Amino acid sequence: MFESAELGHKVGKDVWKKDIPLLREGLLEAQLDLCQSKKFSVIILIAGVDCAGKGETVNLLNEWMDPRHIETHAVRDLTDEELERPPMWRYWRVLPPRGKIGVFIGTWYSAPLLENVSGVIENAELDQRLERIIRFEKMLCDEGALVLKFWLHLSKDEQKKRLKLLEKDPNTRWRVTDTDWEHYRRYDKFRKVSERMLRSTSTAESPWTIVEGTDPFYRYLTIGQAILGSIRARLDAPEPPKHEEPIPPMLPAIDDLLILNTLDMSRTLKKSEYERELEKYQGKLNLLTRNPGFRKLSVVIAFEGNDAAGKGGSIRRIIQALDARQYRVIPVAAPTEEERAQPYLWRFWRNIPRKSRFAIFDRTWYGRVLVERVEGYCERKDWMRAYGEINDFEEQMVRNKTVVVKFWLSITKEEQLKRFKDRESVGFKRYKITDDDWRNREKWNEYEGVVCDMIDRTSTEIAPWTLVEANDKYYARIKVLKTLCERIELALGNKS
Amino acid sequence: MFESAELGHKVGKDVWKKDIPLLREGLLEAQLDLCQSKKFSVIILIAGVDCAGKGETVNLLNEWMDPRHIETHAVRDLTDEELERPPMWRYWRVLPPRGKIGVFIGTWYSAPLLENVSGVIENAELDQRLERIIRFEKMLCDEGALVLKFWLHLSKDEQKKRLKLLEKDPNTRWRVTDTDWEHYRRYDKFRKVSERMLRSTSTAESPWTIVEGTDPFYRYLTIGQAILGSIRARLDAPEPPKHEEPIPPMLPAIDDLLILNTLDMSRTLKKSEYERELEKYQGKLNLLTRNPGFRKLSVVIAFEGNDAAGKGGSIRRIIQALDARQYRVIPVAAPTEEERAQPYLWRFWRNIPRKSRFAIFDRTWYGRVLVERVEGYCERKDWMRAYGEINDFEEQMVRNKTVVVKFWLSITKEEQLKRFKDRESVGFKRYKITDDDWRNREKWNEYEGVVCDMIDRTSTEIAPWTLVEANDKYYARIKVLKTLCERIELALGNKS
Repeated sequence: MFESAELGHKVGKDVWKKDIPLLREGLLEAQLDLCQSKKFSVIILIAGVDCAGKGETVNLLNEWMDPRHIETHAVRDLTDEELERPPMWRYWRVLPPRGKIGVFIGTWYSAPLLENVSGVIENAELDQRLERIIRFEKMLCDEGALVLKFWLHLSKDEQKKRLKLLEKDPNTRWRVTDTDWEHYRRYDKFRKVSERMLRSTSTAESPWTIVEGTDPFYRYLTIGQAILGSIRARLDAPEPPKHEEPIPPMLPAIDDLLILNTLDMSRTLKKSEYERELEKYQGKLNLLTRNPGFRKLSVVIAFEGNDAAGKGGSIRRIIQALDARQYRVIPVAAPTEEERAQPYLWRFWRNIPRKSRFAIFDRTWYGRVLVERVEGYCERKDWMRAYGEINDFEEQMVRNKTVVVKFWLSITKEEQLKRFKDRESVGFKRYKITDDDWRNREKWNEYEGVVCDMIDRTSTEIAPWTLVEANDKYYARIKVLKTLCERIELALGNKS
Repeated sequence: MFESAELGHKVGKDVWKKDIPLLREGLLEAQLDLCQSKKFSVIILIAGVDCAGKGETVNLLNEWMDPRHIETHAVRDLTDEELERPPMWRYWRVLPPRGKIGVFIGTWYSAPLLENVSGVIENAELDQRLERIIRFEKMLCDEGALVLKFWLHLSKDEQKKRLKLLEKDPNTRWRVTDTDWEHYRRYDKFRKVSERMLRSTSTAESPWTIVEGTDPFYRYLTIGQAILGSIRARLDAPEPPKHEEPIPPMLPAIDDLLILNTLDMSRTLKKSEYERELEKYQGKLNLLTRNPGFRKLSVVIAFEGNDAAGKGGSIRRIIQALDARQYRVIPVAAPTEEERAQPYLWRFWRNIPRKSRFAIFDRTWYGRVLVERVEGYCERKDWMRAYGEINDFEEQMVRNKTVVVKFWLSITKEEQLKRFKDRESVGFKRYKITDDDWRNREKWNEYEGVVCDMIDRTSTEIAPWTLVEANDKYYARIKVLKTLCERIELALGNKS
């Protein structure tokens, strides 16, 4: 795999001088077109062997291009805000919006590689982690990003030469650390694992380009031209014809056995019982958040449900038990301009809470497979892939000790009608009912199928859906509170 | 000052029961109107004596209102990202946008109060800090925020009673810390300093409301009604008639002695000399950033100048000396939707760099007193107050060991014409020239006066303007680099 990158590629000064002006002009023009059309974002990864010139290459890229529309990020000195979130949060927060270029040096590949070489993780876990990276990058590409990955390679001899050279010069001596020599001693292992890694993560959408790092002119020209070529090609590509890939149709409902229909919608709770249980579970919830183990957890609560199913009321009963400094309630409406320039899940990633905090979403990332699907706001292939992306998203939170609790509040069509009419007649509740609500109601049956589909595809062991029979508000609120307590208790019990 | 808040105010259960439903309905309606009209943001400060019920009050406010449009912030457990920026950054980053309510518990008043009581700062410094707070709040109000400040008071006896009570109950014992008792012992001092603080920061735009904290019903009702009253009044107020306050006209130019005219625009540098100097100062700059003392600094560079004056070229020469991971270049164009919902300076605050990083602004916060003033994008009173706000902004950065370097790149009208024509004729430079540029050129004289005004009003000792004769690009770039090096050197020498 690295053979071609050890041939001693060199570029003469004459070629360099001849090619550079055209390359720079091309890059600037491509960047301008990108910036104005805002067609896609560009994510450039510069990874590879120590001392192969990653830093210099990135510096040159910045010099060649318009530095106002390119931004470089290094994974180092993580802040505590980053350490309290899932590992990928630090990348999500700096993803370039459409029209811009983000360069990453020290990437999501560094940790798995280092950890495997140093024996912290086995090959099986390495493969798992790489699999997740593949899915992450696929998502980026599906969301329209151009992902370009470069691996700078040096042969063992060349790396040694480079280290010695740096060490000899008093001006660069500081750059050579014990870790560098330690890595050099493990060169063969690094090479083996890198090869495995590159092979398995070189996908059709975002293949690796391996570049010999020895000669700077060769390295710069190769990477520069590859970047220009990719951006230009994508800019100049004609709009793909509108084409809905044939997706297997939803299974026709042969019988009436929808998961939603299995709910016993007649469940109720007497007021006196409600009040007793409310006090009990709110007290319990409050106590749980003051458990010392809670400092290592965070909680994300997702509320979905029929219009007027009582999401707001349930949220109220939760926050009554919490300290206001500890939670945020995030209403999910139309995305802002900054959010629209990013992958779909970005606006949820940006709201992931810190340790010992709650984020309560009133409507969620499931909008994509609910309203966006039904209303045709996105294409079929987009909501089809969303199921997997959402599962990945939730898995990352759970792996970071976030308790993910998802509620579907279900009411019957008759109960909804009653509540709509109630709302219209009570002054300060009128704002809660809009034309949209009435329109959605007409699509009741369609939504029903779509919801069942969603539950089937995204109720996982680590982040299960809780279906809540919500015709009776008392019953629903208690079920929500009780479930929440149980899930947090479970997480506290399992804390490592 | 606290006399009225020690009278033993009480509200009977009957009054409470009668008043509460109306209050809650009113709050919900006001919040809805606010949310839909997006007319202004509401900033509520809940401060006061320990154990006076700040937390409970905030929790109740959250319960009464729609929790999706209100967010509570506490100043505690500062993150390292916050610690590396000016103290006010932590508030700026969570300011509520228009249409939303932000509640702050533990506010910008806590630190000065505590530090004065414990003897860390003298009264003179306390006054200075309070003066800054007044200016900050005035700016918020001028930018359209509604700032409501509540001080919960307890008499000395009452505070003692409260502490004892909390300590007796095993469920609340954890809430009473040694610090609380320590504070109690200093009650008289606290009272004296608080009084001084409240008196001097109770302004016409944002007065303090002192509330007796003893009886919870009284406390909740008083604060709830005050909030409702203020929001409602502001919502229902008729649009103020368009009225340009008479502002003293700019001093008529009696002679030709504009500061810009004192520049010797014939300055040049030979290419050979330029190349020598460029290497010298880039090397120096690079070395400075690797000085151990630099880890305590950050650098903000502001570029303004005539169109085509060479800002981009100067920025390029700076970043050539830096590591790409160390800087961000921030192009200032039209604000985004999220930025427009915030005070004017918000979009610059959000880009303040961490320690040992550079933020390079291509066009800056001075847009308000330049293009916005000339084009009439904001009213006269808005750009008039901007001078002071900008000075405050820069002062805060400097106090946080940020080196603020501001360049005005000046070219003559003839040179500009030449460059415009050049740009139009060279393919890949064409994008650099727009109709706007030609239009701005027609206002050359007006801009000249406005620029001189800006320099006079904002060139301070801690953040001076450097005027750069930029007819000769070589000369200009070296002056920029040299100045930057000098300013960083100075800061390194003065480091504490």
